[in-house]
Amino acid sequence: MNYSQTTLTMKSSMIRELVAITKGVPGMISFAGGFPNPVTFPRESLSEEYRLAVDEDGADTLQYGASEGDEQLKRELLKLENEPGLTPNEILVTAGATHAIYMYTRTFVDPGDVVLSESPSFLGSLVAIEAAGAEVLGVDSDNEGIIPARLGERLEECHRLNKRVKFLYVIPEFQNPTGITTSEARRLEIIAVAREYGIGILEDNPYGQLRYFGTGIPSFRTLAREKYNDRHTVTLVKSFSKILGPGIRMGYMISDERTISHCCSWMQKTTVTVDCVSQRAVARFIAAGKLEPQITRIRDYYRPQLQAMLDALQKFMPANVSWTRPEGGMFLWMEVPEKINTDEVFVKARELKVAYLPGSKFYPSGSEHYNTMRLNFSYPTVEQIWIGVERLAGLITQAIQEVSNGQSR
Amino acid sequence: MNYSQTTLTMKSSMIRELVAITKGVPGMISFAGGFPNPVTFPRESLSEEYRLAVDEDGADTLQYGASEGDEQLKRELLKLENEPGLTPNEILVTAGATHAIYMYTRTFVDPGDVVLSESPSFLGSLVAIEAAGAEVLGVDSDNEGIIPARLGERLEECHRLNKRVKFLYVIPEFQNPTGITTSEARRLEIIAVAREYGIGILEDNPYGQLRYFGTGIPSFRTLAREKYNDRHTVTLVKSFSKILGPGIRMGYMISDERTISHCCSWMQKTTVTVDCVSQRAVARFIAAGKLEPQITRIRDYYRPQLQAMLDALQKFMPANVSWTRPEGGMFLWMEVPEKINTDEVFVKARELKVAYLPGSKFYPSGSEHYNTMRLNFSYPTVEQIWIGVERLAGLITQAIQEVSNGQSR
Repeated sequence: MNYSQTTLTMKSSMIRELVAITKGVPGMISFAGGFPNPVTFPRESLSEEYRLAVDEDGADTLQYGASEGDEQLKRELLKLENEPGLTPNEILVTAGATHAIYMYTRTFVDPGDVVLSESPSFLGSLVAIEAAGAEVLGVDSDNEGIIPARLGERLEECHRLNKRVKFLYVIPEFQNPTGITTSEARRLEIIAVAREYGIGILEDNPYGQLRYFGTGIPSFRTLAREKYNDRHTVTLVKSFSKILGPGIRMGYMISDERTISHCCSWMQKTTVTVDCVSQRAVARFIAAGKLEPQITRIRDYYRPQLQAMLDALQKFMPANVSWTRPEGGMFLWMEVPEKINTDEVFVKARELKVAYLPGSKFYPSGSEHYNTMRLNFSYPTVEQIWIGVERLAGLITQAIQEVSNGQSR
Repeated sequence: MNYSQTTLTMKSSMIRELVAITKGVPGMISFAGGFPNPVTFPRESLSEEYRLAVDEDGADTLQYGASEGDEQLKRELLKLENEPGLTPNEILVTAGATHAIYMYTRTFVDPGDVVLSESPSFLGSLVAIEAAGAEVLGVDSDNEGIIPARLGERLEECHRLNKRVKFLYVIPEFQNPTGITTSEARRLEIIAVAREYGIGILEDNPYGQLRYFGTGIPSFRTLAREKYNDRHTVTLVKSFSKILGPGIRMGYMISDERTISHCCSWMQKTTVTVDCVSQRAVARFIAAGKLEPQITRIRDYYRPQLQAMLDALQKFMPANVSWTRPEGGMFLWMEVPEKINTDEVFVKARELKVAYLPGSKFYPSGSEHYNTMRLNFSYPTVEQIWIGVERLAGLITQAIQEVSNGQSR
């Protein structure tokens, strides 16, 4: 009785494992995880909606629900999205964003097909895409997002190798891990390339609501619709993980009716429905007008943390170190001189009680850059951010000196 | 941008579609669905646990949880199962039984591999197994469950055809659709065959707690452990759908540590975790001692419904019609004379405002028997059961007359 080849060869994201070894260390300041701060969870107001979702709506919510999603929740989501002409049949409630990504990939990918992604990207999504049968290839990105010329080159290269590319996976807002937001010009260029080559765009936007500075940019989906009247190329995935809490497995996808219908078949085969109690509790939470104040509260809470991290980096980091300056989200991305391997610094940092995630864990295999790191600012307090960044700066300064002294392995 | 072959060729279970067209018809008496009666839902007592799971435990339950499952819930499940030596690493909380079946299949099946099942069996599970990549072949069953000799023949046949059989899928208690419980002698014989051929047994037991008459039988898993000290061959899947309500997507699987670990990797890639709020609410519900009274309440509620259906069938059905006599569960299975096609009677029944599911929908493709039907007794009231069975008996009597008059198509 042997396990399947897919099971035996599939990758772990390594992120959980690395985060795990930074936990439970007394005095540890961690920039490693991707956790929302539990202070932001709307416990009291949400608990009341859960109670009502079972006590008042129990005949409905405890019964088998529609795989398409709870009608009341979909009604609220349609209002939230406010996309002209969007119908309930173009939206599917999912058990979080990963579930949406998995089902979308299964809907499109035959074994051997290729999915393109930003490089670096969120490895948790990439391993789900791979587990669903695709080969993931990275496309180089810069501070404005994926470089359209590189995207074209990748597509040509795949064409020459007879590999079918099915879609491009992007996290356009406050990307995980880089914090970068793809510019509007880039979005339009990327849409044009995708349409030219007939590939889809899977737009994963879990952080879009977490904007602390600056103004928003229209989604890929909006731009494709407004410029080309195209509601098919871009599938938008959103999640409540960063707004209500990731313990509630709840997200949704918006696409054309046929794609949603196919993804819904995958829903029936993977989990039948999303938890109906949680769906209704979230629907009630939104209907009660509790969502907007909650988003405001989170923004106000995280804004000083991001500011503190930017200020602390500015103050403590040595020359030759650069970092992104996101206007929202939960992460920023740092580059240290090329000879420094942040996988190695990670071990020393742990001893010094400061943690981050080595950037190498966020690249499709074979294209790792070892002189990068992801820093999370949503979980630690402002005070911890100042202390932690100072510790980290000390370590990196030391590593730079070792490299220039030729002592580095 | 084409959909994947798997997506384009995968089957729907047809059950939802058929149930849907029996809904919303005024005066309809339905034996078609597989729904628990909403009167049995523990709305008030469960709603309080949901409130506490968010308000008191929110820092924990709204945060990312372990893919392995909520520790408190697993502790309660270990107590419930009471399997000697069972550890938390041998149990995985899943988003219902279908989710467990999908992940287990992905864990073992490479494309082209075979999974065997009872014939008939629950098509909702079979389509999930097929969507996960397996070819499903049925094994003939009788009133005691799968016929071990037929199982051996199927395995030999697959061996000759160079097809790898990975596991046998069984619903041993109050099976869906037949209501049949596999006898202890059969279970032992089936385990012996599975061990001989090195295949797994996936024991799906959603109805085991719903026993209204008679005494229980040890599970396949217990028998394999007690007779062979074998904790690897049998993986047991259970669900809270029929006890608390199917809207809560919650089940669990018990297997050896390595299989659980692989299934947990599939959890990470499909949904990350099961909904953590629901996990904790169920954990609290069990810890508060509310589960046993709830099971007793359900048994007391469904017992007269099963009895009414057995009595009504006895009173109204013509000769040449036979049915199973389950001691629990939600369904029984009826066979009418061979020339009658219950797919056709279904249409007439709908006009006469009585619904059932044609038995043909429960066979692996190619092995359908059209003179069978599934009757559900958990959803209708005792009064509806008496009226509905009388209507159905009238239709079948008429169909038998038409057949003997040579009028049937």
